[in-house]
Amino acid sequence: MHAGMERLAVIDMGSNSWRLVVYGFEPGTPWWSLTDEIREAVRVGAGMGEEQTLKPEPIERALHTASVFASFCRSSGIGQVEALATSAIRDARNRDELLEAVAERTGFQVRVVSAEDEARYGYLAIANSTTVTDGAGVDLGGGSMQLMRLEGRELAASTSLPLGSVRMSERFLPGEKASSKQVRALRKHVRAQLEPLEWWPDGGRLAGIGGTIRNLAASAQKRLYFPYVDVGGFELSRDALEELIELLADKPASKRGTIKGIKPDRADVILGGALALAEAMDSGGCDALEVSEAGLREGVFFDRVLGDPPLFDDVRRQSVENLAHRFNSDHHHVEHVGKLSLEMFDGLAAGGAHDYGDEERRLLWAACVLHDIGTAIDYDDHHRHSHYLILHAGLPGFTPRELVLIGLIARYHRKGGPDASELGELERDDDQERLELLCGVIRLAEQLERSRDQSVATVRVVTANGGVKLEPEANGRGADTSVAVWAARRNADLLSEALGRPVEIAG
Amino acid sequence: MHAGMERLAVIDMGSNSWRLVVYGFEPGTPWWSLTDEIREAVRVGAGMGEEQTLKPEPIERALHTASVFASFCRSSGIGQVEALATSAIRDARNRDELLEAVAERTGFQVRVVSAEDEARYGYLAIANSTTVTDGAGVDLGGGSMQLMRLEGRELAASTSLPLGSVRMSERFLPGEKASSKQVRALRKHVRAQLEPLEWWPDGGRLAGIGGTIRNLAASAQKRLYFPYVDVGGFELSRDALEELIELLADKPASKRGTIKGIKPDRADVILGGALALAEAMDSGGCDALEVSEAGLREGVFFDRVLGDPPLFDDVRRQSVENLAHRFNSDHHHVEHVGKLSLEMFDGLAAGGAHDYGDEERRLLWAACVLHDIGTAIDYDDHHRHSHYLILHAGLPGFTPRELVLIGLIARYHRKGGPDASELGELERDDDQERLELLCGVIRLAEQLERSRDQSVATVRVVTANGGVKLEPEANGRGADTSVAVWAARRNADLLSEALGRPVEIAG
Repeated sequence: MHAGMERLAVIDMGSNSWRLVVYGFEPGTPWWSLTDEIREAVRVGAGMGEEQTLKPEPIERALHTASVFASFCRSSGIGQVEALATSAIRDARNRDELLEAVAERTGFQVRVVSAEDEARYGYLAIANSTTVTDGAGVDLGGGSMQLMRLEGRELAASTSLPLGSVRMSERFLPGEKASSKQVRALRKHVRAQLEPLEWWPDGGRLAGIGGTIRNLAASAQKRLYFPYVDVGGFELSRDALEELIELLADKPASKRGTIKGIKPDRADVILGGALALAEAMDSGGCDALEVSEAGLREGVFFDRVLGDPPLFDDVRRQSVENLAHRFNSDHHHVEHVGKLSLEMFDGLAAGGAHDYGDEERRLLWAACVLHDIGTAIDYDDHHRHSHYLILHAGLPGFTPRELVLIGLIARYHRKGGPDASELGELERDDDQERLELLCGVIRLAEQLERSRDQSVATVRVVTANGGVKLEPEANGRGADTSVAVWAARRNADLLSEALGRPVEIAG
Repeated sequence: MHAGMERLAVIDMGSNSWRLVVYGFEPGTPWWSLTDEIREAVRVGAGMGEEQTLKPEPIERALHTASVFASFCRSSGIGQVEALATSAIRDARNRDELLEAVAERTGFQVRVVSAEDEARYGYLAIANSTTVTDGAGVDLGGGSMQLMRLEGRELAASTSLPLGSVRMSERFLPGEKASSKQVRALRKHVRAQLEPLEWWPDGGRLAGIGGTIRNLAASAQKRLYFPYVDVGGFELSRDALEELIELLADKPASKRGTIKGIKPDRADVILGGALALAEAMDSGGCDALEVSEAGLREGVFFDRVLGDPPLFDDVRRQSVENLAHRFNSDHHHVEHVGKLSLEMFDGLAAGGAHDYGDEERRLLWAACVLHDIGTAIDYDDHHRHSHYLILHAGLPGFTPRELVLIGLIARYHRKGGPDASELGELERDDDQERLELLCGVIRLAEQLERSRDQSVATVRVVTANGGVKLEPEANGRGADTSVAVWAARRNADLLSEALGRPVEIAG
């Protein structure tokens, strides 16, 4: 933890699970991280039924979990706590009974979040963790489903419908086996609820949040072959969701947790959630859902600590710089490696040496900013450690494919040759060439900045006579570029191979 | 980097490679880490021959590298620099010519280390990175070989002989092919030099340092199947060394770098080093060599920043606590998990529930102190990240087997079941049971300390009636142990399975 870091706990008392999440943040800066978490499958909404009453057993579990959370906050010395209740508790006739008991036992003043606020927090989570500016969002909870419409990164419309996974499962799929008749009835019910929403889209991007969606995505992702990464940015296609639905419906409810990636404590309600989600996608004409790891809790956190509007300017840039900050990268150095890399990338493109574009440029920049984070683990093999950290510490706004590419570019910034087959099923035909070029560029930029003093201020690219000449320019104060030139000359092979022509370093 | 951290650069101008290593340390504390490194295969001693004269080309390379190092120190703002020259430069007739040119170009006042001091630094590296208290040590460089004898962790005797890998290779193996006659001559020469050393051991432990030894160990280790870890603590058997020698001697010098693990820039001198090492082992009656990642540079660093004597009290404890400190673990929490774990481990042993001993106790303690370091990467899956960090951040004093076991115990401190086959060839017959017990214990200790407030001060173990009862005792101030008991009860399965009897948590 950095000096000046404060902590805020957000407690999310959902219909299915309750979570306490602790965020560390530096007030007045965009730096933050999730530092702790406890999750309990409380199922407070279990058995509420038509009469909308919290049952004694779930209340018992809820009270016990609340006192666990309170002990945790006390003993960890966390003073700032936001405790929120959503759909199940909001809709319960006897909610005051529960909330008063919670207050008495724990001192938590639980805020019952309105359906409107719940959608707004979901929107903030989506807007700050994906690149969706215009499109739709869905937050599928245990009790309710929030639907949102984003226009120009603002929340243009929203609604909350009682179509959560616990609710749908209890109402339509009460037994061990899900009959096709039951499944049809569930689908029809969801469709009927969605139909009146005139603003629900007809195609376009759709982002999804919430534990049910994360779990479905994790299961779908595990059926593919690529490096193990979190589900953030994963695109769950409608087809993949349908495959999962078939797998789930084929098994009795109690066995659904044996399907790879499905959490056992969601086994009995995941199918109801999957069906509701499928209908939401169909009625919105969406072939795919972009998954975010953020959720209601992050929405609450962003609302509390970011400015007004509580939005990061640029999600991807923020993710990358936040991660570099967490691992204490020398930001003058890594940003300068980024600058020199982009100068070479652009200069080579201008000279016709490659025709990659904005996407590669973005990945290259991200890899530059993150290439040294592995030194926080060990200087030896730090390129490998940077790779590990990039894959596993989370980079909202990037897809798994982009994440793996960024990781590989950082992985090969010092030595070795990249191998596109490490992308697994994420590999595209020309990825080997793409990686060699990007690794070739970052490797030279790193060497031109080997002395870490920005002595090479800029680098010019001259393409002529079938070769490439890089001309490092010393910064104005008569800086010594001898290290840079010496180091770069010994590391030009990879770029030269990638371009299929000699690369000369002027000096 | 922590606040209050200072940096010291040590430049090691060896006969084969030159290295600049930067250490971060907090004065007055035992916390340190290697933060940066540049290595150049300068080969300053190349071609010195009998006349003991540094040749123009090596001098050229040396001067260039020195100015690279100087630029690096200037631009990184590193003020404290220790520049040292060893064997090749020490023995060169024209060394002043080189050292004056270095001083003029860079300002470095290079200290020529005496053979005696070189051995002493090697001794400090060994004594602070291995558990050898009584035994022998060997530091194999490019120019010389230092031999040491440790008694009661003190340096009892030492010598430096001109038997380095570059020197031996140039003198005895000058061509592409190594004939058996040449190999025999080399061996005989080394043997003759070692014979007069009356204090050189007859059996016992032998620790080895230096780049040649690390590289030989890396190659031998790569021929085995177990998780990728550094060579620190690896036991290079005499047999494995002989296999490597055969492999190396079979290839022409320029192709030896194609052998897995052998660095290409050592290809032409590694065989000479391997043969010299084999003779040192044979004449000392040592069947195996314990490899350390530390070396002359660390010796210099320890000598500068530790007290007098410049020795850590307990190498393994120091390694573990240093690593926990680097990743900002909550030390009250992790040490308390350690305390509770050892209470259970000891209580269960006393009750006859297992018969593991000191080794397991030590691994369990280390895993406890390190179990949360992964949260520095991401809270999600932090058990996996702790595992990664333990395997890759270095723990001097532990063998690869111990390292992998510590990693696995930490890996399974929250959930899942350990699988001993992850040890690969390091697995022993009873490791599955061993791991289940140790993971079962740490998991309960973690839950008894779930609220992180040391509210459970101690835990008593009662074994009776074929079952085990754990009795947590609240600390004196009337602490609330409800979280602890509740959490532990839900996590007793693994220990219960490991013991083959029910485990009850009193509350």
